[in-house]
Amino acid sequence: VSVVAPQGFVAGGAACGVKESGVPDLAIVATADGTAVTAAGVFTTNLACAAPVQISRLHLADGRAAAIVLNSGNANAATGAAGRAVAKTMAALTAAGIGAATEDVLVCSTGLIGIPLSATPFESGIPKLCADLAADAAHGAAAAQAILTTDTVRKEAVATATIDGITVTVGGLAKGAAMLSPAMATMLAAVTTDAAIEADALQAALVAAVDGSFNSMIVDGCTSTNDTVLVLASGAAGHAPITATTGAAFHAFADALATVCQSLARQMAADAEGATKLATIEIRGARSDAEARLAARTVANSNLVKCSLYGQDPYWGRVLSELGASGAMFDPELTTIAYDGVVVCDKGIAAEHDVGAVARTMAAREITVTCDLHNGVGRSDIITSDLTHGYIDENMGTS
Amino acid sequence: VSVVAPQGFVAGGAACGVKESGVPDLAIVATADGTAVTAAGVFTTNLACAAPVQISRLHLADGRAAAIVLNSGNANAATGAAGRAVAKTMAALTAAGIGAATEDVLVCSTGLIGIPLSATPFESGIPKLCADLAADAAHGAAAAQAILTTDTVRKEAVATATIDGITVTVGGLAKGAAMLSPAMATMLAAVTTDAAIEADALQAALVAAVDGSFNSMIVDGCTSTNDTVLVLASGAAGHAPITATTGAAFHAFADALATVCQSLARQMAADAEGATKLATIEIRGARSDAEARLAARTVANSNLVKCSLYGQDPYWGRVLSELGASGAMFDPELTTIAYDGVVVCDKGIAAEHDVGAVARTMAAREITVTCDLHNGVGRSDIITSDLTHGYIDENMGTS
Repeated sequence: VSVVAPQGFVAGGAACGVKESGVPDLAIVATADGTAVTAAGVFTTNLACAAPVQISRLHLADGRAAAIVLNSGNANAATGAAGRAVAKTMAALTAAGIGAATEDVLVCSTGLIGIPLSATPFESGIPKLCADLAADAAHGAAAAQAILTTDTVRKEAVATATIDGITVTVGGLAKGAAMLSPAMATMLAAVTTDAAIEADALQAALVAAVDGSFNSMIVDGCTSTNDTVLVLASGAAGHAPITATTGAAFHAFADALATVCQSLARQMAADAEGATKLATIEIRGARSDAEARLAARTVANSNLVKCSLYGQDPYWGRVLSELGASGAMFDPELTTIAYDGVVVCDKGIAAEHDVGAVARTMAAREITVTCDLHNGVGRSDIITSDLTHGYIDENMGTS
Repeated sequence: VSVVAPQGFVAGGAACGVKESGVPDLAIVATADGTAVTAAGVFTTNLACAAPVQISRLHLADGRAAAIVLNSGNANAATGAAGRAVAKTMAALTAAGIGAATEDVLVCSTGLIGIPLSATPFESGIPKLCADLAADAAHGAAAAQAILTTDTVRKEAVATATIDGITVTVGGLAKGAAMLSPAMATMLAAVTTDAAIEADALQAALVAAVDGSFNSMIVDGCTSTNDTVLVLASGAAGHAPITATTGAAFHAFADALATVCQSLARQMAADAEGATKLATIEIRGARSDAEARLAARTVANSNLVKCSLYGQDPYWGRVLSELGASGAMFDPELTTIAYDGVVVCDKGIAAEHDVGAVARTMAAREITVTCDLHNGVGRSDIITSDLTHGYIDENMGTS
């Protein structure tokens, strides 16, 4: 499964010594024969973007790539020219190891910001890992494992589409945890597919998939320096290449890509630092989808709403307050709020409801908060987590 | 001191039964003889604003007021037409008690949102309190005490100005705690002055004072339904009335008003729910003051930065990341970040520094984080607190 499920890819993960603890910290996803294939990427909007983001943007300019090298344990962010040199070295070592050009290797890093990253661990680690790449699930899982930071579980996903009667596979791995917000989260995702698709169409499908997945998730509202989603398309499935952003083939592929991204995003939110809840904030009846998204993001990003979710307290007053502060236009005295379908606020005031039913709903790990603004047909869903003692514990120190 | 320090005002606080615990929950600040004087107010921008905010806006339309009645224990928000009727009843009862018109009484409420508020406690409580208003410090303190919710200490402030050789006094009381964000915090403040000033000039001075105080503070980024800052000016000091927003008299008064608001804002941030730190985020060298403010607010509102402050961890990488995500334009590789003057990041990368000095700085209750973007002369300071286990404890349940 995962990133090696599509035809034409190999992967692997290992410990190379970036993390002092000795746990896996290096992963490579590459084409099986080292040739460059169609590729696309979406990167953080953070102005202080990390060295690997800067290098990957350059290397992806031609819409082609042969491999992605990823490390955890150090974000290689706020590391200046020295950091860029290390990111380039990581690309060069990977290129040498798989027989590709340096410019065809993309680089991702995750971990602490502002700590100089040494090239030394990679000098031996990357050649060794390049010699141990394979297409089996264990190697895919090893790659997924090696990029984790405070994540507690691996994140992998697969989906298929049928194009011209041929099965096309999309696979991916990702890491999440904290610093998660729309406009990209501290997250890395590497996606592969054996679809045959031109770079512009692949980029369009990726942007749409990211919008409906990673960018529809908020953990703490922080947009990191390193967010990166990359996709490589080998074309090994053998169908006629997709050359446009219209048509059944494009849509079938785009749906499969979106499914993989959505699965990875949900896995991230569910494994957010300290999270005990996976909540979906559904906005209905907004004046526009854009206003619905604004409202959903404001509710999903509210520390007070998230503390209430943690405390299993159906305190809808905070939800209404965040809707009112969001910038979306609506009449609070027409608004309905429901927890898992049980209406607790109707026409902007407290509604009689089954308190026991809401208590049971709030005790579950997953919960949906639905807000109907009764002001149009705009809608948006945002996934979020609760704010917990565990989040504080994980983020009050770096050690 | 406090709200009764200026000539011409009385105040008082009592328990009237809104809070089941029986602690004080009702306060009144009024002119000594019940006459209406010049007044100004700034209210929450939240669309779902509370009933008392709606009523106070109406009653303040003529720029005059005789009294402010405030309750804690229930925000009277998301309570619909019934809530507005209760807010009007509070105004009418106060008006009857002090011999004013109902339209000259302003109303403030703070507490939980979405819980119906009964008028019953006020029917006996307000007449009784009106009979016990006085101009001494103990009565001012009683009023300041009665509006607290999760605040741990009273918030009072006084400042003076000299106008035409006459001493003018400004006094105020406030409550804060959580739901604190620029564009107004869950906060109430009642300010009095014996300055003689016309309503338009008073409003202008108040807007400026709020901008530099309550709107320059973030605790959790939540903009509440009830935020209100009100000022009453008795004119009892006896100087020639201030009729314009220019001139030495206006500026002397505006400075005193700003001093009171800043003191109350600092007291709020220092007493924020669960806070162990009072942090000032200073942005220097931004392209404009507006961009500096955007950058300062983004850093001050970052859960990750606030967790680091709690953990006394000088993790400047998170600060740089938030600057980069803020929307302000700058070159990360020119940026300097200092904790209490000790530079920990220079030209966007880690700087050699005295680790012991920073550790001592981080252990103090107050800390200043200074970021120089080296891109202009724009500057902004925002006060914030840390994000702690105590914040989660206070907000995970409503009971």
